[in-house]
Amino acid sequence: MSPSSFQPTHRQRARRWRPLGWQPSGIITLLTDFGAADVYAGILEGVILSIAPDCRPVTLTHQVPAQAVEVGSMLLRSAVSYFPEGSVHLAVVDPGVGSDRDPILVVTEKGLLVGPDNGLMHAAALDLGLVEVRRLECDDLFLKPVSHTFHGRDVFAPVAAHLAGGKAPQHVGPVVPGMKELDGLRIDERDGKIVGRVVYIDGFGNLITDIPADRLDRASTVELGELTLPGIADSYAAVAEGAPVALIGSWGSLEIGCNGASAARTLGAQRGDPVTVERGGS
Amino acid sequence: MSPSSFQPTHRQRARRWRPLGWQPSGIITLLTDFGAADVYAGILEGVILSIAPDCRPVTLTHQVPAQAVEVGSMLLRSAVSYFPEGSVHLAVVDPGVGSDRDPILVVTEKGLLVGPDNGLMHAAALDLGLVEVRRLECDDLFLKPVSHTFHGRDVFAPVAAHLAGGKAPQHVGPVVPGMKELDGLRIDERDGKIVGRVVYIDGFGNLITDIPADRLDRASTVELGELTLPGIADSYAAVAEGAPVALIGSWGSLEIGCNGASAARTLGAQRGDPVTVERGGS
Amino acid sequence: MSPSSFQPTHRQRARRWRPLGWQPSGIITLLTDFGAADVYAGILEGVILSIAPDCRPVTLTHQVPAQAVEVGSMLLRSAVSYFPEGSVHLAVVDPGVGSDRDPILVVTEKGLLVGPDNGLMHAAALDLGLVEVRRLECDDLFLKPVSHTFHGRDVFAPVAAHLAGGKAPQHVGPVVPGMKELDGLRIDERDGKIVGRVVYIDGFGNLITDIPADRLDRASTVELGELTLPGIADSYAAVAEGAPVALIGSWGSLEIGCNGASAARTLGAQRGDPVTVERGGS
Repeated sequence: MSPSSFQPTHRQRARRWRPLGWQPSGIITLLTDFGAADVYAGILEGVILSIAPDCRPVTLTHQVPAQAVEVGSMLLRSAVSYFPEGSVHLAVVDPGVGSDRDPILVVTEKGLLVGPDNGLMHAAALDLGLVEVRRLECDDLFLKPVSHTFHGRDVFAPVAAHLAGGKAPQHVGPVVPGMKELDGLRIDERDGKIVGRVVYIDGFGNLITDIPADRLDRASTVELGELTLPGIADSYAAVAEGAPVALIGSWGSLEIGCNGASAARTLGAQRGDPVTVERGGS
Repeated sequence: MSPSSFQPTHRQRARRWRPLGWQPSGIITLLTDFGAADVYAGILEGVILSIAPDCRPVTLTHQVPAQAVEVGSMLLRSAVSYFPEGSVHLAVVDPGVGSDRDPILVVTEKGLLVGPDNGLMHAAALDLGLVEVRRLECDDLFLKPVSHTFHGRDVFAPVAAHLAGGKAPQHVGPVVPGMKELDGLRIDERDGKIVGRVVYIDGFGNLITDIPADRLDRASTVELGELTLPGIADSYAAVAEGAPVALIGSWGSLEIGCNGASAARTLGAQRGDPVTVERGGS
Repeated sequence: MSPSSFQPTHRQRARRWRPLGWQPSGIITLLTDFGAADVYAGILEGVILSIAPDCRPVTLTHQVPAQAVEVGSMLLRSAVSYFPEGSVHLAVVDPGVGSDRDPILVVTEKGLLVGPDNGLMHAAALDLGLVEVRRLECDDLFLKPVSHTFHGRDVFAPVAAHLAGGKAPQHVGPVVPGMKELDGLRIDERDGKIVGRVVYIDGFGNLITDIPADRLDRASTVELGELTLPGIADSYAAVAEGAPVALIGSWGSLEIGCNGASAARTLGAQRGDPVTVERGGS
């Protein structure tokens, strides 16, 4: 993680985000690593509904692996664009709670993101159209006394609720120059081949890579370890039951799955494994 | 799975389901095998709320075992009748996504079912009073581009949302002759005994069978493997702590449980195990 | 568990809880041991929304360990105070379903609790300000026929929904003298030291104890097994990564965590382990 050098272009966006222009949808999405066995997620909803009784909390997931900021970042990014404009996205994977990492609001063209400044929200912010970042300094909005261990409850949920209830973004704190971003592994080009990685394995065992759809064509050859797949299929059902297949998955990137089975288990693949693509003719 | 020969009796039902007669409750129930660790279920809610902001998604479960259509079918059936009339039930356990299985709407007397035509919704549809089946051809309602891997997001959720928001069922596509049903294991009668099976084991370890309550009386003898239970009790508490007991469970069928313990673990029972009932005098 | 000798002071509270004074927030929180793989929790929401279509079910957790009344009690207590006044808290961890344990409504100063009289709701009731306890005898409100195995569905959810929809508490049944409470392990004082216990381990592996914050000062020494921690820190981040730390946690009591890691795993600690505190100067 390193401070971002991103400089928002305020002037250019000003037409969309005038001070009085925030129109909340009333929806607050929740993404955390709190798990489902504890009541921490329920407490967030209680805090939110106490402040903004008419807003609608929607769970993205509370099962980000504990303190796995990078996984949380990918899951958040994959979901936010499916929600109405004017939604507030509350994201809490926060291993640095109680340290000096900032609590922030990220204003985007399509909605607001609230959470810790640890890289968790950066990819989602870019997808939604980053406008500006504000440090949360509005302690009159916080739940008092603010603990050093649960800012989700005491800082982020109250601020998100006030915003979803109509409070204008400029009231939560000053604009800051940028936000932290994750040192993403980036795809490489070598000898005419694209080398990316398995960045996520979903609950079905599908291998999600970071190679975007526009780097592929139907004749692309895909290599993962010993396995070579000779083309990009349309669907899991294009191959025999249990067989591996490369396709454009629902994340908008190259995905390797198995028809009716777990590719992770069948292929013994793990997060981080390299995947090589050689484009065919076109 | 085989095509159903069911022929809906349109005339007979016409009084209840006139073209203009669809009155949504605004509730959309969700049953999938997406798991809770991914955000696929959250994405469904985002799509739904983008189309029908006032409707209310309610989770039945997202933890149907991956691609286990038969388990999903039983869980769906056990829940739908507890929801208000006019609810839409969105069910996605869809190993055939991308193949030629049809996406369908099932109109029933008490609500609508939307999902793949793979048997998942048949039992629930019968319980709710099957009226007619329609193939989803309304691609102006779909999320574009429609992927080959996530029809829950691109096809089923948008259609369910439009229906819950008031769109009439006849607008989603033409009536088709029937729907697929699962080759259920059916209970047998042999030598005056009824032989059924453990069809589901719930999270408490209770053994749910497919032997309906009306085939039992208080004096019925129940056999599972080496175990013989000499009658149907009223409640788990009717026997000593840890002891096995046969009763009419909350699914409306014969259930074998243990008082305060897991019957599956205590008895070493598994899904599919045969259960034999001999009725007592009455 | 033993019957409580608690005698509510009706007169003193009468100003707050007049017969006509119940003003529901419309929120019903749900805490059960039903798990997320079954649809029992979804069925509760269906029953609730069939009776009170405008109320808002909010999940606290459905993953209380099966029949673990004591764990459920702590989780319930930790969450209820974060919800708006006028909320109904439905709690079902009910190993005694079908026995002669009573179904009860607990009226408090800040909201209502509905569930079995087995100690589950006692700690939460004290925190919310216990006013009176009523036995549910309003069988016209129940779902018929009332099963002997699923009072969550047939008794507690319907009553909670009617209350959240505006029915006055006095209509559900008569006041009874008190409610069951759990035989809590209580903290001891020995030789100037306070001895409590690890009462809960959360999903992050933090060790929650029953030693309240007001028994600690910054110089307190904390002992757990072989480990001695020489003071109460402000946050997990106050120590090196992976190191153990004692602090006031989000539950309002002494907590032992590890910075960025699971204290339960790192320290090999278990629920029930004794924790000793010696206060420093003050």
